[in-house]
Amino acid sequence: MEHRRLGEKYGWHFIRTDYPYTHRMFRVRQDTLRWPDGQVRPFTYIETKPVVLIVPLTEAGEVVLIRQFRYPLDRWFWEIPAGGSHDFDGDDLLELARRELREEVGGEAESWEAMGTCYLGLGLMPQRLHLYLARGVRLHEQETEVGEIIEVHPVPFAQALAMARSGEIESGPVACALFRAEARLRG
Amino acid sequence: MEHRRLGEKYGWHFIRTDYPYTHRMFRVRQDTLRWPDGQVRPFTYIETKPVVLIVPLTEAGEVVLIRQFRYPLDRWFWEIPAGGSHDFDGDDLLELARRELREEVGGEAESWEAMGTCYLGLGLMPQRLHLYLARGVRLHEQETEVGEIIEVHPVPFAQALAMARSGEIESGPVACALFRAEARLRG
Repeated sequence: MEHRRLGEKYGWHFIRTDYPYTHRMFRVRQDTLRWPDGQVRPFTYIETKPVVLIVPLTEAGEVVLIRQFRYPLDRWFWEIPAGGSHDFDGDDLLELARRELREEVGGEAESWEAMGTCYLGLGLMPQRLHLYLARGVRLHEQETEVGEIIEVHPVPFAQALAMARSGEIESGPVACALFRAEARLRG
Repeated sequence: MEHRRLGEKYGWHFIRTDYPYTHRMFRVRQDTLRWPDGQVRPFTYIETKPVVLIVPLTEAGEVVLIRQFRYPLDRWFWEIPAGGSHDFDGDDLLELARRELREEVGGEAESWEAMGTCYLGLGLMPQRLHLYLARGVRLHEQETEVGEIIEVHPVPFAQALAMARSGEIESGPVACALFRAEARLRG
């Protein structure tokens, strides 16, 4: 049984949850509800495992961007290191962030700071992303997995912001992480 | 048959596509591939219909933020008007943007400018978002649908950027749209 206290207040009444499709990385969740208009209908959305997203800063003040080839879109994208948990319910997220930084760019950080969360989408794909700022990053050899094609590109932080404004950086989660890091680097 | 020219170059060989789960708003796509290591395995991801995201500016230079209650997360979020197409393959996206602006905030714009695209995710959920800047927006009555609980909050553009930096704005796509609009409002 779910507790959706605000949902109840706004007229949703929860009846039950089904998972009509489950994959290693996500599951399709279907809640049967009485909606605010009194009708019973499903509300269907995707549940995923927690994801971490890392803004790595070198001692020289550069942010370590990556260029990654993405099979589904058949293109390269500007991104930052990121990765998903193996569990739906948990995992040590900071440890996951350390591992992804090491694997994707060969990075080791002197200090880590949690920058809160952001969301991939809010309706169909309410996936939570945990943001970290890694400072004093030194780069060694990458340890990428099969199918990960990643180039490492440190750039000045102001240039990364300019790339988000111009549209060279096209990822919503990366934009969210850059705004959050901007607040910390100004402060 | 799919053409993934770069994918072929980097060692993926496409064999076939299946859709093991289809919903009105999305479908699960499973491509069977020979991967760069020579093994045959599926690559599974979510395909969705095109989405538009609108940065509405009033004549006073305010951006019309919305606060929306999201059932799956049982919380309110700061967002901007957005909406999905009814087709996987198309639709008139500008017309969709006009409709969403009218429905969600009761807005009518004097001019529209396309600001390119951004992506929700790039791996599991490679969903493309089409960004629009709507200028000279006047606000009338909302025409929300069942289950849409939306408040309308015009704020100065600089305040919206500050909210993205502080973490009050938690949506990746909204962060992406604000960066893109910032470039146009400075220029």
